[in-house]
Amino acid sequence: MELLKNKILQDGQVIGGNVLKVDSFLNHQIDVQLFNEIGKEFKERFKHKEVTKILTIEASGIGIACIAAQYFNVPVVFAKKQQGSNMDKDNFQVEVFSFTKNKSYNVSVSKKYISSEDKILIIDDFLANANAASGLIDIVNQGEAEVVGVGIVIEKGFQNGRKFIEEKNVQLESLAIIESMEKNNIIFKN
Amino acid sequence: MELLKNKILQDGQVIGGNVLKVDSFLNHQIDVQLFNEIGKEFKERFKHKEVTKILTIEASGIGIACIAAQYFNVPVVFAKKQQGSNMDKDNFQVEVFSFTKNKSYNVSVSKKYISSEDKILIIDDFLANANAASGLIDIVNQGEAEVVGVGIVIEKGFQNGRKFIEEKNVQLESLAIIESMEKNNIIFKN
Repeated sequence: MELLKNKILQDGQVIGGNVLKVDSFLNHQIDVQLFNEIGKEFKERFKHKEVTKILTIEASGIGIACIAAQYFNVPVVFAKKQQGSNMDKDNFQVEVFSFTKNKSYNVSVSKKYISSEDKILIIDDFLANANAASGLIDIVNQGEAEVVGVGIVIEKGFQNGRKFIEEKNVQLESLAIIESMEKNNIIFKN
Repeated sequence: MELLKNKILQDGQVIGGNVLKVDSFLNHQIDVQLFNEIGKEFKERFKHKEVTKILTIEASGIGIACIAAQYFNVPVVFAKKQQGSNMDKDNFQVEVFSFTKNKSYNVSVSKKYISSEDKILIIDDFLANANAASGLIDIVNQGEAEVVGVGIVIEKGFQNGRKFIEEKNVQLESLAIIESMEKNNIIFKN
C-alpha cells in the first residue's frame, strides 16, 4: 500500500534498531483519512471471505478496527488487557508478551462475544513476533469460531510473526512489510 | 439521542447500583453503525465550533473518537495510560482515578500533538465524576490549547461530573444522561 509506505518513510522514526515509532499517525495521534484507506485496503484483501466480526486488542488496534469495520459492515470486539469492575468474569483468556512494554499480561474477551458461528478477521497495528496475533487466534479457537484472516498495518518482516501465523494456515495480509530498518533507512519488501 | 437511549434500555445492565454495563455495544463489543450515528450527533452538537483535533483516552474512547473524527475531518489523539518503549519522554501528564478499575494512573500525551493553536474537542464514553475528562482538560491547558467542548456518550447525571466541567466554562454535550438507575429501571433526564 503505497500511501502507507510513503507515510512511514516520511514520518516513521527508527529507534534503537528494533522500534519503529509511528505515533504521529498510527498509535498515538491518528490520521483518520489514512485509516479509511487502510480499511478499504483490508476489505479489498479479504473481499472473498465472509466476515461476521473483527477482533482486535486494546489500545492501538481499536481505531483501525473500527474504521475498517465500516467497510465490512460488522461489529468490532476488542480484547482487554485489564480486568475492570464492569467486565464479565466468564472470559476467554490468554497470556501475551508485549515487546514495547517488556512484560506479559492477560488478554481476555467475554465469552458472550465469540460464538462458534463467528468468522473472525483479526486486525492489529503491528506484527513482529506475533505474540498478540497468536493470542487472539488462541482466543478465537477457544470460542470454536473460525479465523478467516489476520490483517496487519505494519509487519516487521525481519521477525518471525509471519511464520507463526502461516503455520496455523491463516491468511495473513500486511499492508506494509519492512524488510530491514535502521536510522533514516527503512526498506520495504517489494 | 433516542437511538442510543433505546440501545441502553435494551442491552444495558445495571450492576451494584453504580455500574452500567454496556459492553455489548460500547466498550468491549462495538456497534459501529451506532458509533456512526453518535459521530454525526457530536458533529451536530458542536457544529458552530472550530475543531482542529479530537482528544480522547485509551481504550474505550478511541473507537468513538475515530468514527466521530470522520465528521469533523480532523485527527484523533488518544491519551495513554502506560508508558511504552516507543513513547516520547516529553509529555503532558496528569494523574487520573478510575472508578471501574479502582486505582489511579498517570495519563500522558506527547507534547508534539498539542500546540497552542489547537482547538480541541474531548470525547469519551462515560462521564461520572469527570476524573478522566478533567484530566484531559488539564492536559489541553498544559499545552496552552483551547478546549472547545466535551462530548460524552453516556453521562451519569446523578454524579458530579457535569458540575466540574461547567465550572471550567466548557460546553458539555452528553448524548444520553441517566437521571437514576437500578436493576431493570434506567431513567433518562428529558
